[in-house]
Amino acid sequence: MPRKSKSKARSSPPAHYIGIDLGGSQIKYGIVSTSGKILTKGGRLTPLKKGRKGVIDSLVEIAGNLLKFARKNKIKIRGIGIGSPGCIDMNSGKVMGSSPNIPFWVGTNLKKIFRKFNLPVSADNDANLMALAEARFGAAKNCQSAVCLTIGSGIGGGIIINGEVYRGSNFSAGEIGHTSVNYLGEKCNCGRVDCMETYASANAMLRRTQKLVRTDGKSVLSQLIRKNGNRLDVPTFFQAFRKKDRVAQKIVEETGETLSRGIANVVNILNPEVVVIGGGLVDEYPPIIKKIERKVKHKVFPAATNLKIKKAKLGNQAGFIGAAYLASQKKRHEE
Amino acid sequence: MPRKSKSKARSSPPAHYIGIDLGGSQIKYGIVSTSGKILTKGGRLTPLKKGRKGVIDSLVEIAGNLLKFARKNKIKIRGIGIGSPGCIDMNSGKVMGSSPNIPFWVGTNLKKIFRKFNLPVSADNDANLMALAEARFGAAKNCQSAVCLTIGSGIGGGIIINGEVYRGSNFSAGEIGHTSVNYLGEKCNCGRVDCMETYASANAMLRRTQKLVRTDGKSVLSQLIRKNGNRLDVPTFFQAFRKKDRVAQKIVEETGETLSRGIANVVNILNPEVVVIGGGLVDEYPPIIKKIERKVKHKVFPAATNLKIKKAKLGNQAGFIGAAYLASQKKRHEE
Repeated sequence: MPRKSKSKARSSPPAHYIGIDLGGSQIKYGIVSTSGKILTKGGRLTPLKKGRKGVIDSLVEIAGNLLKFARKNKIKIRGIGIGSPGCIDMNSGKVMGSSPNIPFWVGTNLKKIFRKFNLPVSADNDANLMALAEARFGAAKNCQSAVCLTIGSGIGGGIIINGEVYRGSNFSAGEIGHTSVNYLGEKCNCGRVDCMETYASANAMLRRTQKLVRTDGKSVLSQLIRKNGNRLDVPTFFQAFRKKDRVAQKIVEETGETLSRGIANVVNILNPEVVVIGGGLVDEYPPIIKKIERKVKHKVFPAATNLKIKKAKLGNQAGFIGAAYLASQKKRHEE
Repeated sequence: MPRKSKSKARSSPPAHYIGIDLGGSQIKYGIVSTSGKILTKGGRLTPLKKGRKGVIDSLVEIAGNLLKFARKNKIKIRGIGIGSPGCIDMNSGKVMGSSPNIPFWVGTNLKKIFRKFNLPVSADNDANLMALAEARFGAAKNCQSAVCLTIGSGIGGGIIINGEVYRGSNFSAGEIGHTSVNYLGEKCNCGRVDCMETYASANAMLRRTQKLVRTDGKSVLSQLIRKNGNRLDVPTFFQAFRKKDRVAQKIVEETGETLSRGIANVVNILNPEVVVIGGGLVDEYPPIIKKIERKVKHKVFPAATNLKIKKAKLGNQAGFIGAAYLASQKKRHEE
């Protein structure tokens, strides 16, 4: 597939698509060519407080602005792709499953949002689109099988099988963040217990750190928290980690162990060529990739030890690049 | 695929293949048509004490006898399929991964064993072949996606994706029995810790029962064990279970819980249409299927709640039926 579209791109001018990645905190977007080139891009905060209508208005405004940009620059836009948290019915465009980060979002029809632009619209789960982008243009390029994880406020997962995103029997495959890695443990905000996300997401790290750190103490971390207006956030955490704060070191070590348990499970199930990990944790502390790789290799079957674990290549642009690419696939397949 | 071969079977006489399922305790075998009809079948104990050569001799003898039967009955045999524990390189036919139940088996070339018969030979992991048989002729018939588990002395797993067995990047996908379901627990005989197999296989059930039961006590189970020459085995266990023995009831309850945790993980990853469970546990106590289904549905994403959990349909014949079917696929694809 990637080769096909590439050779096509070489022989005729590349087609362009709008890609939008709706997240719980930010909306990222751009105009992307079928060969993965970004022509323009941007980001803004998700107006969660304005509720569903506010988020929809924001998405429509973004698409409108990108189309204006395209007209001005004589770029023909052939379609819109959108990624969103939750389980997305790709046929109808409806958000079906729960998405705790945007609680009012279930039931929204992502395709209908952009109706007024008279362009083909494709919609998918955000982590699936990250996986699609990494498989076409990033760390899993040319791989037939891959498992992709984004570790941020939650843990998103996408699966590549036979070179394509695998979505399962009703679009809910890939929820690796919600596999259980413990036996009698903490409740996840998806309602289930012991999800990997409850132990190894950025939010989980901060929550567990907060329990361990004494803000009145003299540790590096407690000093940094006080300096930060008594607030513990991701940058503060990693500042302390780099300064060898004991609690921060312990939490990162535990997080690596938990991730390696969850990843080993999915490797024993799927035996992929590569596991790609993106998100804040690996951006702030890239060496964790090698640590996780070592731990995973101790936990998987000998035959799977040629497995590679790689850092995601496209960063936080993967979502909208994947969304635009999805839109280009729709074009090829359906028109 | 199944439809194709069926309509072919209707228009021309069905082709016949030898299927052999090598297990740690028994070898099961038969002559099977492409439409899944068994013409003859049999089983014998695996001569483990005679080592590798003894097992190979036994397999060759079985194939020879089946070919003799075929000649006598004017059945043309077009190929041989064999299933074996361990990770099988389907190209070379070599047993690659560990198979704790037949420790001397690694390195054996399953295709070369049958060289003297001058027939095409196909080889695969036994649980993959169980999944293939259930997908073509059994509980997962016509399903695009399925996860199949056999719970016996160990726990084997096979995955169906897009209607075909999914084997991963180097033939080790589907090792669901060796996904971790606990955090700080027992060592599995695959060398890893906390594998589902360590908690929920028949062997695990007996091991845990042995710890809990007092053979000098007056419980139903302890009486039955004494009657059985102080030996605890699977039939004795289930006899006690059906007589409401407290320990046996507790162990079955815990096993259902452990299985449901492991199954929920794989469902959150793969979102299959159906999970098929076979082996001694469900044969002895079929209601556990519904119990596991209820538990799994509490642990998976809402979108996956139309999931079905079914009892395997082909029993302990699934392995050799799958092996014969695999051989017929080779015929179609490679000749």
